[in-house]
Amino acid sequence: MSLIVQKFGGSSVADAESIKRVAKRIVETRKAGNEVVVAVSAMGDTTDELLDLAHEVAPIPAPREMDMLLSAGERISMALLAMAIESLGHDARSFTGSQAGMITDARHGAARIVDVTPVRLREALDEGAIVIVAGFQGFNRDTKDITTLGRGGSDTTAVALAAALNADVCEIYTDVDGIFSADPRLVPKAQKIDRITSEEMLELAANGAKVLYIRAVEYARRHGVTLHVRSSFNNNEGTIVYNPTESETAVEEPLIAGVATDLSEAKITVVGVPDIPGKAAQIFTIVAKTGANIDMIVQNVSAASTGLTDISFTLPKSEGQLVLTALRAEQEDSGFKALQYDDQIGKLALVGAGMRTNAGVSAKLFTALYEAGINIEMISTSEIRISVVTRADTINDALRVVHTAFGLDAENEAVVHAGTGR
Amino acid sequence: MSLIVQKFGGSSVADAESIKRVAKRIVETRKAGNEVVVAVSAMGDTTDELLDLAHEVAPIPAPREMDMLLSAGERISMALLAMAIESLGHDARSFTGSQAGMITDARHGAARIVDVTPVRLREALDEGAIVIVAGFQGFNRDTKDITTLGRGGSDTTAVALAAALNADVCEIYTDVDGIFSADPRLVPKAQKIDRITSEEMLELAANGAKVLYIRAVEYARRHGVTLHVRSSFNNNEGTIVYNPTESETAVEEPLIAGVATDLSEAKITVVGVPDIPGKAAQIFTIVAKTGANIDMIVQNVSAASTGLTDISFTLPKSEGQLVLTALRAEQEDSGFKALQYDDQIGKLALVGAGMRTNAGVSAKLFTALYEAGINIEMISTSEIRISVVTRADTINDALRVVHTAFGLDAENEAVVHAGTGR
Repeated sequence: MSLIVQKFGGSSVADAESIKRVAKRIVETRKAGNEVVVAVSAMGDTTDELLDLAHEVAPIPAPREMDMLLSAGERISMALLAMAIESLGHDARSFTGSQAGMITDARHGAARIVDVTPVRLREALDEGAIVIVAGFQGFNRDTKDITTLGRGGSDTTAVALAAALNADVCEIYTDVDGIFSADPRLVPKAQKIDRITSEEMLELAANGAKVLYIRAVEYARRHGVTLHVRSSFNNNEGTIVYNPTESETAVEEPLIAGVATDLSEAKITVVGVPDIPGKAAQIFTIVAKTGANIDMIVQNVSAASTGLTDISFTLPKSEGQLVLTALRAEQEDSGFKALQYDDQIGKLALVGAGMRTNAGVSAKLFTALYEAGINIEMISTSEIRISVVTRADTINDALRVVHTAFGLDAENEAVVHAGTGR
Repeated sequence: MSLIVQKFGGSSVADAESIKRVAKRIVETRKAGNEVVVAVSAMGDTTDELLDLAHEVAPIPAPREMDMLLSAGERISMALLAMAIESLGHDARSFTGSQAGMITDARHGAARIVDVTPVRLREALDEGAIVIVAGFQGFNRDTKDITTLGRGGSDTTAVALAAALNADVCEIYTDVDGIFSADPRLVPKAQKIDRITSEEMLELAANGAKVLYIRAVEYARRHGVTLHVRSSFNNNEGTIVYNPTESETAVEEPLIAGVATDLSEAKITVVGVPDIPGKAAQIFTIVAKTGANIDMIVQNVSAASTGLTDISFTLPKSEGQLVLTALRAEQEDSGFKALQYDDQIGKLALVGAGMRTNAGVSAKLFTALYEAGINIEMISTSEIRISVVTRADTINDALRVVHTAFGLDAENEAVVHAGTGR
């Protein structure tokens, strides 16, 4: 008998009809002879509505109470889902994060899982029940308080349960058919990827692919959990995100898995930095203190005549003003001349484990962009990824030409479902 | 320092503005130098909305899951209330029924409290925090499952907390100014009662007074908790429901505390019951098996010529069909002739501890009704109560003449607030 963990997001359980549909799907999996554990998010907009209420009663809601409040959302969806399954004649039991043994640290609103002790879940499974677990939430042993895992928390719950219960697969249900070689809304001929390594998936997720949260993929990679990203609207096979064994990695992997783009970043350029040891470190220490998530960093070659250099880096637009303010406050001490802020950039990332052993990928990428008349402003690479920054208004063209250049286009256009897959 | 338990119902926390108002009131009590524990119901119609959702996904929702679902309601209101208090600069912490140590049996939807272990509440109070507890919900130790207490559960939570924490008083906030000598919507000259014994309050609640739930009053009486029923819209003193000491009961008590009426009952008459030993027992065994709540019972004197008698009893209209069906099924075996069902009755109950030592109350009651031309159909008495059944359409007249006859009328008419005080 296989043990399957299934995760359904808020849009999959947005109303009574959706819940009944999901219940049927879960029962089918059970009937096929599998043990089933389900992680479920709060219904549709519940979380946003609770957040609105919180801000109506308190300008800065207490974090402990915010977690208590938000955890009510999954409690509602999971109880309804369990009822719907029971009314189909199958034993189902819902468990809160705390009941499921989802032990976290005490960081309210962004708790990290420190242990999973699914004793009650294992008991319920042994008794033949379908287990429904509240996604997104946990419990701190020291404070005995409810915590929440932050964005993408339900994906992480599902993966953590799969790891702790040694599940055969963790199915992430979404409103698209799987992971695509590029966003099918932008590249109509994007292809569904059948199999992708967790390492590649991490790079795609980190570079703008929205279907899976980085954190859940990281957890899956660290704990050897196989993910199956698939549609909740059909029974098609989706995308398997796997952790290759030694022997599998030796097999030649496809050159390129996919291309992701991201318009959510901005570029800050620190102009006229004295080109002396320690200056870059000083600047990035200032930036680090803000807690901002720096992505690409480029330092220009110093002009010998001036002894000055420019340093550029990208970061989420939402953190731009914070970092600019921090840098301005230290301008005199740091000795740079000026700051430039540019929020009209786009980032494209080409990801593929095969590029490890295959030269010429960069050259092919740059040639494709050059031939399309697209200017490259920044370049950054990892072992299995090449990222470039272009003007924001050229990023979709860049995506399409790169997709074509690397032979990723499908014969036919993909069918795109509505929604975001959250 | 006094410890005060306060209970706020759903209408007191129906929206963000109400929650902020209640938060201010709680903070005032804290500032006056008291320790404060608050039991709170779910916001406004939340419970009804969750019930509707449950019935949309499952015709007969699983009881365990129903409790899990409904318990989300107080989780939302209590977290919001705690946030609102924190934003007023006071430490506040919310606790679920389980966290508060509200231990119950395992009867989902109608659980009874078996133990209260408010360890975490005491700790939070010792640290200077205002404690907010989810009303209505508990936790079963054996199944480790969430339970709910059923109707009036939040009142019971408040009283149970007051008993376990040895509180000085348990304040029940409502939308009326306290307990009245009769329903002020029916008797404009009804007077607010300043003090009433828990025994009298029990009789009034059992006979149609809607402000307090019987169960909470019973719990308060058994555990010696003093209740203060008061308005959440003003700072007036409300009604103290107290447990008289030996010496207090010796003091002459007011003859009549109040008059309650109830239109929710119906009368079943079992016609032509053979007047032989064991027949009444047989009939009430059939009724008892339905679980119906029988109230008044009257057996007519047997007609010697026929050897047959009639037995009438009252019960909630909602249980009428159930009991009729059960009786019909056993008619042959029981040997009665026919069943009559009458749902056009009204019940009036006159309650007062003083009638223990004071003859003539019945006579005065019957005279007042006779002079008003109101026919009495059934009579039942306890030590501190006399109940009569009349036609439903005469019950409000009956209420007014009795209220006047016993000198309960105020000089001025009471100010009646809207709402039901739930």
